[in-house]
Amino acid sequence: MSGKDFGIWEGEKTIDLPQETEAGLYFIGRIHTPWKERKDCPKNARESEAVCTVEVDPRWREALKDVETCTHIVLLYWMDRSPRNLVLQVPGHLGIQRGTFALRSCPPQPDRHERGQIVACRRQPALSRWARLPGWHALLDIKPYFASTDSVPEATVGWHKRKD
Amino acid sequence: MSGKDFGIWEGEKTIDLPQETEAGLYFIGRIHTPWKERKDCPKNARESEAVCTVEVDPRWREALKDVETCTHIVLLYWMDRSPRNLVLQVPGHLGIQRGTFALRSCPPQPDRHERGQIVACRRQPALSRWARLPGWHALLDIKPYFASTDSVPEATVGWHKRKD
Repeated sequence: MSGKDFGIWEGEKTIDLPQETEAGLYFIGRIHTPWKERKDCPKNARESEAVCTVEVDPRWREALKDVETCTHIVLLYWMDRSPRNLVLQVPGHLGIQRGTFALRSCPPQPDRHERGQIVACRRQPALSRWARLPGWHALLDIKPYFASTDSVPEATVGWHKRKD
Repeated sequence: MSGKDFGIWEGEKTIDLPQETEAGLYFIGRIHTPWKERKDCPKNARESEAVCTVEVDPRWREALKDVETCTHIVLLYWMDRSPRNLVLQVPGHLGIQRGTFALRSCPPQPDRHERGQIVACRRQPALSRWARLPGWHALLDIKPYFASTDSVPEATVGWHKRKD
Protein backbone atom coordinates (compact mmCIF):
# COMPACT_ATOMS: atom_id res chain seq x y z
CA MET A 1 0.00 0.00 0.00
CA SER A 2 2.98 2.31 -0.11
CA GLY A 3 4.82 3.56 -3.16
CA LYS A 4 3.56 5.68 -6.01
CA ASP A 5 1.98 2.84 -7.95
CA PHE A 6 -0.18 1.46 -5.18
CA GLY A 7 -0.82 4.42 -2.84
CA ILE A 8 -4.06 6.19 -1.95
CA TRP A 9 -4.91 9.16 -4.20
CA GLU A 10 -6.69 12.36 -3.23
CA GLY A 11 -10.47 11.82 -3.21
CA GLU A 12 -10.18 8.11 -2.46
CA LYS A 13 -11.78 6.53 0.61
CA THR A 14 -10.70 3.48 2.60
CA ILE A 15 -12.52 1.33 5.15
CA ASP A 16 -11.33 -0.85 8.01
CA LEU A 17 -11.15 -4.47 6.88
CA PRO A 18 -12.10 -7.37 9.19
CA GLN A 19 -9.19 -8.63 11.29
CA GLU A 20 -9.15 -11.98 9.52
CA THR A 21 -9.99 -13.23 6.07
CA GLU A 22 -13.00 -15.51 5.78
CA ALA A 23 -12.02 -17.94 3.02
CA GLY A 24 -8.73 -19.22 1.63
CA LEU A 25 -7.27 -19.83 -1.82
CA TYR A 26 -4.62 -22.25 -3.09
CA PHE A 27 -2.18 -21.13 -5.74
CA ILE A 28 -2.00 -23.54 -8.68
CA GLY A 29 0.92 -22.11 -10.65
CA ARG A 30 2.18 -18.89 -12.17
CA ILE A 31 1.43 -16.64 -15.09
CA HIS A 32 4.36 -14.82 -16.70
CA THR A 33 4.10 -11.85 -19.06
CA PRO A 34 6.68 -9.95 -21.11
CA TRP A 35 5.97 -6.63 -19.35
CA LYS A 36 8.32 -5.50 -16.58
CA GLU A 37 6.31 -2.65 -15.05
CA ARG A 38 2.68 -1.76 -14.55
CA LYS A 39 2.93 1.27 -16.83
CA ASP A 40 4.02 -0.92 -19.75
CA CYS A 41 0.90 -3.15 -19.62
CA PRO A 42 -1.84 -2.44 -22.16
CA LYS A 43 -5.01 -0.81 -20.76
CA ASN A 44 -7.17 -3.15 -22.81
CA ALA A 45 -5.57 -6.57 -22.94
CA ARG A 46 -6.74 -7.12 -26.51
CA GLU A 47 -4.59 -4.24 -27.72
CA SER A 48 -1.60 -6.54 -27.46
CA GLU A 49 -0.58 -9.71 -29.23
CA ALA A 50 1.98 -10.51 -26.51
CA VAL A 51 2.06 -14.14 -25.46
CA CYS A 52 1.92 -15.02 -21.77
CA THR A 53 3.13 -18.26 -20.25
CA VAL A 54 0.78 -20.17 -17.97
CA GLU A 55 2.72 -22.57 -15.78
CA VAL A 56 0.66 -25.06 -13.80
CA ASP A 57 2.09 -26.83 -10.74
CA PRO A 58 2.73 -30.58 -11.20
CA ARG A 59 -0.09 -31.56 -8.86
CA TRP A 60 -2.62 -29.80 -11.11
CA ARG A 61 -1.29 -30.73 -14.56
CA GLU A 62 -3.81 -33.47 -15.30
CA ALA A 63 -6.54 -30.86 -14.88
CA LEU A 64 -5.39 -29.35 -18.22
CA LYS A 65 -6.93 -32.30 -20.10
CA ASP A 66 -9.34 -31.04 -22.82
CA VAL A 67 -8.33 -27.37 -22.33
CA GLU A 68 -6.63 -27.52 -25.74
CA THR A 69 -10.09 -27.88 -27.32
CA CYS A 70 -11.09 -24.39 -26.06
CA THR A 71 -10.29 -21.30 -28.11
CA HIS A 72 -10.53 -18.98 -25.08
CA ILE A 73 -10.14 -19.35 -21.34
CA VAL A 74 -10.77 -17.30 -18.23
CA LEU A 75 -7.63 -16.88 -16.14
CA LEU A 76 -7.73 -15.97 -12.46
CA TYR A 77 -4.58 -14.67 -10.86
CA TRP A 78 -3.64 -12.92 -7.66
CA MET A 79 -2.65 -9.25 -7.72
CA ASP A 80 -0.74 -9.44 -4.46
CA ARG A 81 0.30 -5.78 -4.24
CA SER A 82 -3.15 -4.21 -4.68
CA PRO A 83 -4.77 -2.33 -1.79
CA ARG A 84 -7.93 -4.06 -0.56
CA ASN A 85 -9.64 -1.40 1.53
CA LEU A 86 -10.72 1.20 -1.05
CA VAL A 87 -14.48 1.86 -1.38
CA LEU A 88 -14.15 4.99 -3.51
CA GLN A 89 -11.34 5.32 -6.02
CA VAL A 90 -9.94 7.96 -8.35
CA PRO A 91 -8.43 6.04 -11.27
CA GLY A 92 -5.31 7.87 -12.43
CA HIS A 93 -6.31 8.02 -16.07
CA LEU A 94 -9.85 9.23 -15.29
CA GLY A 95 -9.41 11.70 -12.42
CA ILE A 96 -13.01 11.24 -11.19
CA GLN A 97 -14.19 9.52 -8.01
CA ARG A 98 -15.94 6.20 -8.71
CA GLY A 99 -17.34 3.39 -6.57
CA THR A 100 -15.03 0.38 -6.34
CA PHE A 101 -17.72 -1.99 -7.63
CA ALA A 102 -18.10 0.15 -10.77
CA LEU A 103 -14.38 -0.25 -11.55
CA ARG A 104 -12.29 -3.21 -12.65
CA SER A 105 -9.38 -2.46 -10.33
CA CYS A 106 -8.84 -4.96 -7.63
CA PRO A 107 -10.34 -4.32 -4.18
CA PRO A 108 -11.68 -5.97 -2.17
CA GLN A 109 -10.34 -9.23 -3.65
CA PRO A 110 -7.18 -9.09 -5.71
CA ASP A 111 -8.18 -12.14 -7.72
CA ARG A 112 -8.38 -10.61 -11.15
CA HIS A 113 -10.19 -12.57 -13.82
CA GLU A 114 -9.47 -12.01 -17.48
CA ARG A 115 -10.25 -13.66 -20.75
CA GLY A 116 -7.33 -15.36 -22.42
CA GLN A 117 -6.98 -16.44 -26.01
CA ILE A 118 -5.31 -19.82 -26.11
CA VAL A 119 -2.24 -20.04 -28.28
CA ALA A 120 -1.09 -23.50 -27.23
CA CYS A 121 -2.09 -25.86 -24.45
CA ARG A 122 -1.12 -29.38 -25.48
CA ARG A 123 1.70 -29.47 -22.99
CA GLN A 124 3.34 -27.42 -20.25
CA PRO A 125 3.57 -24.50 -20.19
CA ALA A 126 0.36 -23.37 -21.84
CA LEU A 127 0.56 -20.16 -23.86
CA SER A 128 -2.14 -17.53 -23.88
CA ARG A 129 -2.76 -13.97 -25.05
CA TRP A 130 -4.47 -11.02 -23.30
CA ALA A 131 -3.15 -11.05 -19.74
CA ARG A 132 -2.14 -7.54 -18.71
CA LEU A 133 0.02 -7.64 -15.62
CA PRO A 134 3.69 -6.96 -15.06
CA GLY A 135 6.17 -9.76 -14.39
CA TRP A 136 4.62 -12.87 -12.90
CA HIS A 137 1.72 -13.49 -10.55
CA ALA A 138 0.30 -16.49 -8.73
CA LEU A 139 -2.29 -18.36 -10.76
CA LEU A 140 -5.59 -19.27 -9.10
CA ASP A 141 -7.73 -20.90 -11.72
CA ILE A 142 -8.29 -21.67 -15.40
CA LYS A 143 -11.81 -22.01 -16.76
CA PRO A 144 -13.14 -22.43 -20.30
CA TYR A 145 -14.87 -19.38 -21.78
CA PHE A 146 -18.39 -20.26 -22.88
CA ALA A 147 -19.79 -17.67 -25.31
CA SER A 148 -23.32 -18.85 -24.46
CA THR A 149 -23.01 -17.60 -20.89
CA ASP A 150 -19.98 -15.31 -20.88
CA SER A 151 -20.39 -13.15 -23.95
CA VAL A 152 -22.66 -10.09 -23.64
CA PRO A 153 -21.75 -7.85 -26.59
CA GLU A 154 -24.61 -5.43 -25.85
CA ALA A 155 -23.41 -4.63 -22.30
CA THR A 156 -22.59 -1.00 -21.59
CA VAL A 157 -20.89 0.85 -18.73
CA GLY A 158 -22.66 4.19 -18.50
CA TRP A 159 -20.01 6.19 -16.66
CA HIS A 160 -17.40 5.04 -19.18
CA LYS A 161 -19.51 6.01 -22.19
CA ARG A 162 -20.11 9.49 -20.84
CA LYS A 163 -16.38 9.98 -20.46
CA ASP A 164 -15.84 9.60 -24.21
CA MET B 1 -17.45 -33.54 0.34
CA SER B 2 -20.00 -36.07 1.49
CA GLY B 3 -23.56 -36.45 0.32
CA LYS B 4 -24.87 -37.30 -3.11
CA ASP B 5 -24.65 -33.76 -4.49
CA PHE B 6 -21.00 -33.13 -3.64
CA GLY B 7 -19.36 -36.57 -3.54
CA ILE B 8 -16.67 -38.06 -5.77
CA TRP B 9 -18.00 -39.93 -8.81
CA GLU B 10 -16.52 -42.99 -10.50
CA GLY B 11 -13.72 -41.97 -12.88
CA GLU B 12 -12.89 -38.81 -10.94
CA LYS B 13 -9.44 -38.15 -9.51
CA THR B 14 -8.42 -36.15 -6.46
CA ILE B 15 -5.07 -34.76 -5.31
CA ASP B 16 -3.67 -33.86 -1.90
CA LEU B 17 -4.06 -30.14 -1.30
CA PRO B 18 -1.41 -28.09 0.53
CA GLN B 19 -1.91 -28.03 4.29
CA GLU B 20 -2.65 -24.33 4.31
CA THR B 21 -4.23 -21.87 1.91
CA GLU B 22 -1.95 -19.22 0.44
CA ALA B 23 -4.20 -16.17 0.14
CA GLY B 24 -7.32 -14.97 1.92
CA LEU B 25 -10.64 -13.44 0.89
CA TYR B 26 -13.06 -11.14 2.67
CA PHE B 27 -16.78 -11.63 2.26
CA ILE B 28 -18.59 -8.41 1.27
CA GLY B 29 -22.22 -9.48 1.49
CA ARG B 30 -24.62 -12.14 0.28
CA ILE B 31 -26.39 -13.15 -2.88
CA HIS B 32 -29.84 -14.71 -2.55
CA THR B 33 -31.68 -16.65 -5.25
CA PRO B 34 -35.19 -18.07 -5.46
CA TRP B 35 -33.94 -21.68 -5.92
CA LYS B 36 -33.92 -24.00 -2.91
CA GLU B 37 -31.82 -26.88 -4.24
CA ARG B 38 -29.00 -27.36 -6.70
CA LYS B 39 -31.15 -29.45 -9.05
CA ASP B 40 -33.63 -26.57 -9.45
CA CYS B 41 -30.98 -24.11 -10.73
CA PRO B 42 -30.84 -23.52 -14.50
CA LYS B 43 -27.83 -25.06 -16.30
CA ASN B 44 -27.36 -21.88 -18.29
CA ALA B 45 -28.14 -18.88 -16.13
CA ARG B 46 -29.64 -17.00 -19.05
CA GLU B 47 -32.41 -19.56 -19.37
CA SER B 48 -34.06 -17.95 -16.37
CA GLU B 49 -35.56 -14.52 -15.76
CA ALA B 50 -35.44 -15.07 -11.99
CA VAL B 51 -34.28 -12.06 -10.02
CA CYS B 52 -31.52 -12.48 -7.42
CA THR B 53 -30.90 -10.15 -4.53
CA VAL B 54 -27.40 -8.81 -4.02
CA GLU B 55 -26.96 -7.57 -0.45
CA VAL B 56 -23.77 -5.63 0.27
CA ASP B 57 -22.47 -5.21 3.84
CA PRO B 58 -22.74 -1.66 5.25
CA ARG B 59 -18.96 -1.14 5.18
CA TRP B 60 -18.92 -1.68 1.39
CA ARG B 61 -22.10 0.18 0.37
CA GLU B 62 -20.40 3.34 -0.91
CA ALA B 63 -18.53 1.14 -3.37
CA LEU B 64 -21.84 0.70 -5.27
CA LYS B 65 -21.61 4.31 -6.52
CA ASP B 66 -21.91 4.37 -10.35
CA VAL B 67 -22.80 0.65 -10.60
CA GLU B 68 -26.33 1.71 -11.58
CA THR B 69 -24.88 3.07 -14.85
CA CYS B 70 -23.80 -0.46 -15.91
CA THR B 71 -26.21 -2.76 -17.72
CA HIS B 72 -24.28 -5.91 -16.72
CA ILE B 73 -21.96 -6.88 -13.90
CA VAL B 74 -19.66 -9.77 -13.01
CA LEU B 75 -20.56 -11.29 -9.65
CA LEU B 76 -18.10 -13.37 -7.64
CA TYR B 77 -19.45 -15.57 -4.90
CA TRP B 78 -18.20 -18.39 -2.76
CA MET B 79 -19.46 -21.95 -3.36
CA ASP B 80 -18.58 -23.12 0.12
CA ARG B 81 -19.69 -26.75 -0.28
CA SER B 82 -17.72 -27.59 -3.44
CA PRO B 83 -14.85 -30.09 -3.30
CA ARG B 84 -11.49 -28.45 -4.06
CA ASN B 85 -9.21 -31.37 -4.79
CA LEU B 86 -10.57 -32.78 -8.08
CA VAL B 87 -8.18 -32.76 -11.08
CA LEU B 88 -10.31 -35.00 -13.28
CA GLN B 89 -14.09 -34.85 -13.10
CA VAL B 90 -17.05 -36.71 -14.56
CA PRO B 91 -19.85 -34.14 -14.76
CA GLY B 92 -23.15 -35.85 -13.97
CA HIS B 93 -24.96 -34.68 -17.09
CA LEU B 94 -22.04 -35.58 -19.42
CA GLY B 95 -20.74 -38.91 -18.11
CA ILE B 96 -17.25 -38.38 -19.60
CA GLN B 97 -13.99 -37.68 -17.76
CA ARG B 98 -12.73 -34.13 -18.29
CA GLY B 99 -9.89 -32.04 -16.90
CA THR B 100 -10.96 -29.64 -14.17
CA PHE B 101 -9.59 -26.61 -16.04
CA ALA B 102 -11.76 -27.49 -19.06
CA LEU B 103 -14.90 -27.38 -16.88
CA ARG B 104 -16.75 -24.55 -15.17
CA SER B 105 -17.36 -26.43 -11.95
CA CYS B 106 -15.57 -25.09 -8.95
CA PRO B 107 -12.20 -26.64 -7.97
CA PRO B 108 -9.65 -25.59 -7.02
CA GLN B 109 -11.15 -22.25 -5.98
CA PRO B 110 -14.86 -22.14 -5.21
CA ASP B 111 -15.10 -18.47 -6.16
CA ARG B 112 -17.51 -18.70 -9.02
CA HIS B 113 -17.74 -15.72 -11.34
CA GLU B 114 -20.84 -15.09 -13.40
CA ARG B 115 -22.27 -12.35 -15.51
CA GLY B 116 -25.29 -10.62 -14.04
CA GLN B 117 -27.84 -8.46 -15.78
CA ILE B 118 -28.62 -5.51 -13.55
CA VAL B 119 -32.29 -5.00 -12.80
CA ALA B 120 -31.92 -2.28 -10.17
CA CYS B 121 -28.99 -0.90 -8.24
CA ARG B 122 -29.89 2.60 -7.10
CA ARG B 123 -30.20 1.46 -3.50
CA GLN B 124 -29.80 -1.61 -1.30
CA PRO B 125 -30.32 -4.40 -2.09
CA ALA B 126 -29.26 -4.46 -5.72
CA LEU B 127 -31.25 -6.78 -7.99
CA SER B 128 -29.67 -8.86 -10.72
CA ARG B 129 -30.53 -11.68 -13.11
CA TRP B 130 -28.51 -14.77 -14.12
CA ALA B 131 -27.05 -16.13 -10.90
CA ARG B 132 -27.54 -19.90 -10.73
CA LEU B 133 -26.98 -21.15 -7.22
CA PRO B 134 -29.33 -22.48 -4.58
CA GLY B 135 -30.27 -20.45 -1.51
CA TRP B 136 -27.70 -17.84 -0.55
CA HIS B 137 -23.93 -17.65 -0.79
CA ALA B 138 -21.25 -15.29 0.43
CA LEU B 139 -20.52 -12.48 -2.02
CA LEU B 140 -16.90 -11.73 -2.88
CA ASP B 141 -16.92 -9.04 -5.49
CA ILE B 142 -18.90 -6.99 -8.00
CA LYS B 143 -17.27 -5.72 -11.18
CA PRO B 144 -18.66 -3.94 -14.23
CA TYR B 145 -18.87 -6.05 -17.41
CA PHE B 146 -16.96 -4.37 -20.22
CA ALA B 147 -17.97 -5.76 -23.62
CA SER B 148 -14.68 -4.46 -25.08
CA THR B 149 -12.64 -6.88 -22.96
CA ASP B 150 -15.16 -9.44 -21.66
CA SER B 151 -17.26 -10.35 -24.67
CA VAL B 152 -15.84 -12.98 -27.04
CA PRO B 153 -18.82 -14.20 -29.10
CA GLU B 154 -16.60 -16.30 -31.38
CA ALA B 155 -15.15 -18.41 -28.54
CA THR B 156 -15.78 -22.16 -28.75
CA VAL B 157 -15.30 -25.07 -26.37
CA GLY B 158 -14.36 -28.02 -28.56
CA TRP B 159 -15.27 -30.86 -26.23
CA HIS B 160 -18.68 -29.31 -25.68
CA LYS B 161 -19.39 -28.88 -29.39
CA ARG B 162 -18.54 -32.51 -30.11
CA LYS B 163 -21.06 -33.59 -27.48
CA ASP B 164 -23.95 -31.98 -29.39
